[in-house]
Amino acid sequence: MSYDRITSDNAALLMVDHQTGLANGVQTMSPPEFVNNVKALATLGKLYNLPAIVTTSAADGPNGPVMPVVTSLLTDATLIHRPGEVNAFDNPDFAAAVKKLDRKKLLIAGISTEVCVAFAVLSALKQGYEVYAVVDASGTWDTRVEQAAIARMVQAGAIPITWCAVGAELMGDWRSPVGQAHGALMAEHLPFAGNLFASFAAAKVA
Amino acid sequence: MSYDRITSDNAALLMVDHQTGLANGVQTMSPPEFVNNVKALATLGKLYNLPAIVTTSAADGPNGPVMPVVTSLLTDATLIHRPGEVNAFDNPDFAAAVKKLDRKKLLIAGISTEVCVAFAVLSALKQGYEVYAVVDASGTWDTRVEQAAIARMVQAGAIPITWCAVGAELMGDWRSPVGQAHGALMAEHLPFAGNLFASFAAAKVA
Amino acid sequence: MSYDRITSDNAALLMVDHQTGLANGVQTMSPPEFVNNVKALATLGKLYNLPAIVTTSAADGPNGPVMPVVTSLLTDATLIHRPGEVNAFDNPDFAAAVKKLDRKKLLIAGISTEVCVAFAVLSALKQGYEVYAVVDASGTWDTRVEQAAIARMVQAGAIPITWCAVGAELMGDWRSPVGQAHGALMAEHLPFAGNLFASFAAAKVA
Amino acid sequence: MSYDRITSDNAALLMVDHQTGLANGVQTMSPPEFVNNVKALATLGKLYNLPAIVTTSAADGPNGPVMPVVTSLLTDATLIHRPGEVNAFDNPDFAAAVKKLDRKKLLIAGISTEVCVAFAVLSALKQGYEVYAVVDASGTWDTRVEQAAIARMVQAGAIPITWCAVGAELMGDWRSPVGQAHGALMAEHLPFAGNLFASFAAAKVA
Amino acid sequence: MSYDRITSDNAALLMVDHQTGLANGVQTMSPPEFVNNVKALATLGKLYNLPAIVTTSAADGPNGPVMPVVTSLLTDATLIHRPGEVNAFDNPDFAAAVKKLDRKKLLIAGISTEVCVAFAVLSALKQGYEVYAVVDASGTWDTRVEQAAIARMVQAGAIPITWCAVGAELMGDWRSPVGQAHGALMAEHLPFAGNLFASFAAAKVA
Amino acid sequence: MSYDRITSDNAALLMVDHQTGLANGVQTMSPPEFVNNVKALATLGKLYNLPAIVTTSAADGPNGPVMPVVTSLLTDATLIHRPGEVNAFDNPDFAAAVKKLDRKKLLIAGISTEVCVAFAVLSALKQGYEVYAVVDASGTWDTRVEQAAIARMVQAGAIPITWCAVGAELMGDWRSPVGQAHGALMAEHLPFAGNLFASFAAAKVA
Amino acid sequence: MSYDRITSDNAALLMVDHQTGLANGVQTMSPPEFVNNVKALATLGKLYNLPAIVTTSAADGPNGPVMPVVTSLLTDATLIHRPGEVNAFDNPDFAAAVKKLDRKKLLIAGISTEVCVAFAVLSALKQGYEVYAVVDASGTWDTRVEQAAIARMVQAGAIPITWCAVGAELMGDWRSPVGQAHGALMAEHLPFAGNLFASFAAAKVA
Amino acid sequence: MSYDRITSDNAALLMVDHQTGLANGVQTMSPPEFVNNVKALATLGKLYNLPAIVTTSAADGPNGPVMPVVTSLLTDATLIHRPGEVNAFDNPDFAAAVKKLDRKKLLIAGISTEVCVAFAVLSALKQGYEVYAVVDASGTWDTRVEQAAIARMVQAGAIPITWCAVGAELMGDWRSPVGQAHGALMAEHLPFAGNLFASFAAAKVA
Repeated sequence: MSYDRITSDNAALLMVDHQTGLANGVQTMSPPEFVNNVKALATLGKLYNLPAIVTTSAADGPNGPVMPVVTSLLTDATLIHRPGEVNAFDNPDFAAAVKKLDRKKLLIAGISTEVCVAFAVLSALKQGYEVYAVVDASGTWDTRVEQAAIARMVQAGAIPITWCAVGAELMGDWRSPVGQAHGALMAEHLPFAGNLFASFAAAKVA
Repeated sequence: MSYDRITSDNAALLMVDHQTGLANGVQTMSPPEFVNNVKALATLGKLYNLPAIVTTSAADGPNGPVMPVVTSLLTDATLIHRPGEVNAFDNPDFAAAVKKLDRKKLLIAGISTEVCVAFAVLSALKQGYEVYAVVDASGTWDTRVEQAAIARMVQAGAIPITWCAVGAELMGDWRSPVGQAHGALMAEHLPFAGNLFASFAAAKVA
Repeated sequence: MSYDRITSDNAALLMVDHQTGLANGVQTMSPPEFVNNVKALATLGKLYNLPAIVTTSAADGPNGPVMPVVTSLLTDATLIHRPGEVNAFDNPDFAAAVKKLDRKKLLIAGISTEVCVAFAVLSALKQGYEVYAVVDASGTWDTRVEQAAIARMVQAGAIPITWCAVGAELMGDWRSPVGQAHGALMAEHLPFAGNLFASFAAAKVA
Repeated sequence: MSYDRITSDNAALLMVDHQTGLANGVQTMSPPEFVNNVKALATLGKLYNLPAIVTTSAADGPNGPVMPVVTSLLTDATLIHRPGEVNAFDNPDFAAAVKKLDRKKLLIAGISTEVCVAFAVLSALKQGYEVYAVVDASGTWDTRVEQAAIARMVQAGAIPITWCAVGAELMGDWRSPVGQAHGALMAEHLPFAGNLFASFAAAKVA
Repeated sequence: MSYDRITSDNAALLMVDHQTGLANGVQTMSPPEFVNNVKALATLGKLYNLPAIVTTSAADGPNGPVMPVVTSLLTDATLIHRPGEVNAFDNPDFAAAVKKLDRKKLLIAGISTEVCVAFAVLSALKQGYEVYAVVDASGTWDTRVEQAAIARMVQAGAIPITWCAVGAELMGDWRSPVGQAHGALMAEHLPFAGNLFASFAAAKVA
Repeated sequence: MSYDRITSDNAALLMVDHQTGLANGVQTMSPPEFVNNVKALATLGKLYNLPAIVTTSAADGPNGPVMPVVTSLLTDATLIHRPGEVNAFDNPDFAAAVKKLDRKKLLIAGISTEVCVAFAVLSALKQGYEVYAVVDASGTWDTRVEQAAIARMVQAGAIPITWCAVGAELMGDWRSPVGQAHGALMAEHLPFAGNLFASFAAAKVA
Repeated sequence: MSYDRITSDNAALLMVDHQTGLANGVQTMSPPEFVNNVKALATLGKLYNLPAIVTTSAADGPNGPVMPVVTSLLTDATLIHRPGEVNAFDNPDFAAAVKKLDRKKLLIAGISTEVCVAFAVLSALKQGYEVYAVVDASGTWDTRVEQAAIARMVQAGAIPITWCAVGAELMGDWRSPVGQAHGALMAEHLPFAGNLFASFAAAKVA
Repeated sequence: MSYDRITSDNAALLMVDHQTGLANGVQTMSPPEFVNNVKALATLGKLYNLPAIVTTSAADGPNGPVMPVVTSLLTDATLIHRPGEVNAFDNPDFAAAVKKLDRKKLLIAGISTEVCVAFAVLSALKQGYEVYAVVDASGTWDTRVEQAAIARMVQAGAIPITWCAVGAELMGDWRSPVGQAHGALMAEHLPFAGNLFASFAAAKVA
């Protein structure tokens, strides 16, 4: 058993088909929760300088453009528009871009969990990557579908994870230089933490 | 049967005990949903120039300060710190402030639904106000508690409502001067709407 | 207490904002269930020759066109595009069209339950109509929102109903001339009934 | 509309059939939640010196003795063992004891919500009492049963309430002499409050 | 406010369309729970000698024969096969049979809650009966449908009730001659009670 | 991968602590569902002549006697009362009785899933048995506890199963000599099947 | 780890016991959702020319004939009526038919998940096939039963999947010749997609 | 397959970040349930003399002090305040303290399940410990997050367990010297057991 951690140096972030049309098909979370989670993961990617690839499926059609919360945060990401390939690794530009990143760990999230996420996860595992499926920044049409997809990915060896754990593994120590920025991220996207911070600050001067 | 609508001229907004400590006791919604709803209601108050009163219960103690999403938006609200009264109307300053607003409709939200919200709702009804309990910008510890509180308020004559209906009744027509700002508010707090807007804009130029 | 039934002669059907963009914001049912229910209600309208009005909100914008299942079935409905009015009764053409129908009972369904449905229901009640809110052919973003909307409509005197009860009240007797067509509708939209019919037919010849 | 509050002077507490055998049939809450709520209500009764009657149904049979959390707290309560009457008001001793209390408001909780609670509530309403059904300190076998019972009691004019609202209405103001004891009760039975208090105390000295 | 109890002398039991085909469309309870509840209500009818009418809708077609648990228990019930009428009161034989019973209270259960139960309930209310909708011995296709039906019936004045409360109101006192038989019924259909009885008997001799 | 089926010759049934006191602590199913499932499994044991061991934990104390549905069906079972051992295999009589059965497959069900069931399952696996955890004839206090217990047992190699699958694997073919009795068992404990049979029989003669 | 995809050339579809009587016992999804999913999978089979076998259990008895949505779509499927065998592979004709297909991957769906689906899955795995359990086009009586069945199949090596993922893996690229037909299928069975398409088409011409 | 039990001699208890601020972010259980479970596990640690380490994360900041139910029970525990390390094993004092305990089994619980619990579990597994994740004495912000965390820990080899199973494995036999104290613990934290004991005691003397 090995526990090799996610770091700014060994991991990359793949955001698959977080598009505005597809996002409106997600029924596994409420829309405010889904946007919150996607934004939190993208913010982590930016904060920890994770190289990122944002890919879309037929973005000039009904699936729509990338969700603004992704594009506005991951401004340095490589953007790969797939004209038709469902599995992102079937697109040569995407496959090349991933290879070029030269990271052994891939953090994958997207829409929908059982198709574009699961297929990319399975292909990445086949190529030997250590793959993390960020399940709360991913969504799909139905809870049964999501659970089957997670079971399939875990069976294949992917590590199920959620954005808050990704962030905590990246930071490692609250005294790190990004600790304060990390705290602000938590306060924004895990509102109970924001409430705690505000209550604490007020109590100290009370 | 009468259906008299909420307008910028006949309604006021009472935000009761949306405090950071109390907010962490809310279990009827996820924290991202609760913050989203409270923020949406406060933004509506600001957009439609509703006179507002923000009141707190022992804000220098464990209940904590007002949630930042409320104070940052309702900058013109009258702020009434109650030293101990549970029912806001028992506080003479609060009662006087409400009276001074001279509005026949009161929109009330807060924490917790069955205590500080329900008590203020019942006192306001007793005084002859038309009272709207904004139930999705209110929260409490348990779903059964919330349902009993809503049943009690409805039994007493309060109108159960949610922020999106408050906003739609205030706007009335998308062609109104605030229509565009209202749309932006919807896009932010009802993310499916934001996705629709982005998809539509992209499709038009596709 | 009076129980006056829905008939082909006393009722009209108002379909409010069943638009493709808005439909993707409905999270109170799964999309297959919602489409199924909307289609069932529209089919009942057609089968029982209920005069119908289909209205939309800004249908040339993000809200999108009327759901195809509505337009393909209610081909004789009056279609009223509202340029901006949230409450359909605020649109003079809609108000006139309803008046012209001269029916004392209005069956109202749409998106979203707490806004376009509830507002039309409240205005119709105010004008003296007997109003039925068809809650399973209506949808909205969140279950709490739906429940508050139903509580508000019931409090105001609207009758909560679902498409299957609407249909059964219209038919009245399985031996009526439309009984067979009604059975086919049930078999299609209440699939357990379709299974019963198929099993029965097979058993008789077994 | 009238809103007349629960006070130490106008209210009495009726605990109906909180027996150890019956308690194990409650499936509307988890056992830790149910015991917590019953204990909280009993503690309120003691703290505010509410005259109390504890009654049992066939306590020397399978229904079992009174739950220890009730007897250990309400040591001054009148204890009425009913040999067979389901509706407590059918027992002459109980009816006389209630009458002797001479309180216009009755707070009623027990097992099961739809039988021993609902029947006592209905009889008390019939006799002209203002009746509060404390629904979270009451329990039954199934959620549908509980909801039907609450609907029946509300329809008859009973006020649905929960222990925390009972307590807040009794206290009225945190500066009252029992404010501190009330806070301790909250900390114990609404653990988020206990956590808030501990966090606040620690923050002040941090 | 009046609270007039159900007794063997003032009440009758109407079992509407508990047919084997329809029963397989019930999705508001699990089948074992539904059969259990229907059987419990029928057993109560028999135990308390409630005059009963069992009616069916097109029982020689796909809806199927009466559920065996009903026919085997209510052997003295009047059986009315309706050839086509959805609302049982539209069938002259049924209407006459109800009239002939000469009871002021009607306990109504059946399939489906929003159609055959609700319609009979509404017609009975209109005729001046006191009507109890036994909601847990009734079933339908979907929880939203059930809740709308219950809201509609309560709005019209029907009393929502469940079989255990019906039984307790009928018995009144455990020392009644049928107390022991009533206990056996409880042990069978409310299995926690059966477990209590067995545990108690064993403990006494331990 | 091997798929070796459960047969009357290779399997034994171990019923662990299905006692009346413990049964009233089960909150993972409703009591009617739990009794139904336990009875169904016991009936299968009897129908297929599976050697059975029924064991209890401190049955002369609060845990109570074996549930009557077990004892009345498994009349030939070996009954082992454990004076204190939690893990049944720690009791020498039980361990010897299992050994004496000389079956390679053990079907284990009981109360509670995470303690008496899981411990026996783990010990049996350690001894080399093929172990089936019959999870729907087992129960415990909380769903999270049940899910952790099932995950633990599956991780250790136990096969998760439910009574209906046990029965189907035992029968194998509806034309077997016990096919008709098996059908009767299904009709009783899977009531939708009973409804199907009744509907079919009626349809044939319609 | 290997990820070998489902293609028109390597896979076959086995539809097990999707019969009208059995379908009415499915309680893991609503009937409209179940029919929708079964129809979607059958449509995929037809669109991608997957060789298919449809098998039934005692179809001339209460289980009823094949669901019409299956027979009307899979017109070229081999139809195997099993007179009594529960496990389809126990029927020599079925076993031979599967062998004759000569496909290494088997997609299996049916009723019920834990019996006829799980048994066929386990037998197919034993014979060396790569087996996909299409869990959303399969159904059973209870969620706990379904989850135990999925856990058992995954433990044995079956891949859990849902129809939408099956389809996406078969299509591979939206630019394939069947891309348009695939889109139509999605629009029909994943209604949010149909809404997206209609909104997009309207937006382009707006 | 090995089944090596938890004993007083081979196991240690690690309580990770059960702090009052963090506890108010737990939404996977109600607060009364969470406190109850944490207290039960701590009481087991004390009763069975398990060496214990209590660790905190930035306890002088918003996360707050250790929950009083932990400190008041585990008075002999080693207390390690981590100034910033998220993974407790990254803190040299904690790592040394665990090593010094010299136990091969570690029972780990805390807040939050996917961060501080999961990270400690994974590090402990990597170091060769047998690790038990006590999931019901652990909590986090969201059920999906919890399930992903449990799946990740199980995938890595940790044993999922709950406090009641920990206790039962430690006691082993009710006749052990601590059996009576263990029973008292059960009565307190598994209230159905307390009810059973009280009912039994009363029945014996009835």
